[in-house]
Amino acid sequence: MANKPRFATANEAEAVFYGSIEAGDLDMLMQVWADDDGILCIHPGGGRLAGRAAIRESWRSILANGSGMRFVLTDEQATLDEDLAVHAVREAITLSNNSQGVMLATNVYRRVGDSWRLIMHHASPEPPRQEAEAPLPSRGTLH
Amino acid sequence: MANKPRFATANEAEAVFYGSIEAGDLDMLMQVWADDDGILCIHPGGGRLAGRAAIRESWRSILANGSGMRFVLTDEQATLDEDLAVHAVREAITLSNNSQGVMLATNVYRRVGDSWRLIMHHASPEPPRQEAEAPLPSRGTLH
Repeated sequence: MANKPRFATANEAEAVFYGSIEAGDLDMLMQVWADDDGILCIHPGGGRLAGRAAIRESWRSILANGSGMRFVLTDEQATLDEDLAVHAVREAITLSNNSQGVMLATNVYRRVGDSWRLIMHHASPEPPRQEAEAPLPSRGTLH
Repeated sequence: MANKPRFATANEAEAVFYGSIEAGDLDMLMQVWADDDGILCIHPGGGRLAGRAAIRESWRSILANGSGMRFVLTDEQATLDEDLAVHAVREAITLSNNSQGVMLATNVYRRVGDSWRLIMHHASPEPPRQEAEAPLPSRGTLH
């Protein structure tokens, strides 16, 4: 059995996470996730999936239906502790049919042995800007 | 000026977070949040709000429109490091008109000095169970 890849930082794990989705590489994607049945994944509009079997199956389905996804990540904000890191990121996604959407993601990484692994991915659709501001009195600070 | 409350654990901060929403106490709610313009809040279906001014305004609007919210928290899963904690929780919310909904929340707390404070709240609606499972071949592991 091949050695598991080692991710020296949460940033490195995150780069492989998104890279493996773009590449449609389910096995690599699952190597970023911790080998732990406490891992959690909330896809945009979806329920809470727990554990490797359910999470793998969800990504298998997504990759089967979404080949050619491209991500541009912006507004990354990281909070780091010794063995735990939380990354908030905006995912601008382009599908192979050129449809586009923006998701807001919270990615949580934990150091497990000598490697950082993903333990949680929570993503939800960012509404169009006008909708996002409509329910709240705008104070010019919502950008 | 009154002393700021001290939250000895992330759990304690979380209890006051939800308690202050139920009580409609905006000032107490904002004392749970870190005094830091890097704080982030994503309400269900909403955009990403950054900083105390935008986050306070969003909760002011929610509390003005949603008096009498009641939360039942289930499926709490906590990941703790020395100064950083991530809580995943299901929020079963009942409004004063008895309408109900379930949100999936990721709450991130950081120890600031001698107190734990909220630095991130990311919530998204949990779809009805059938919808949640529909896009994915069910393997009986999505509960």
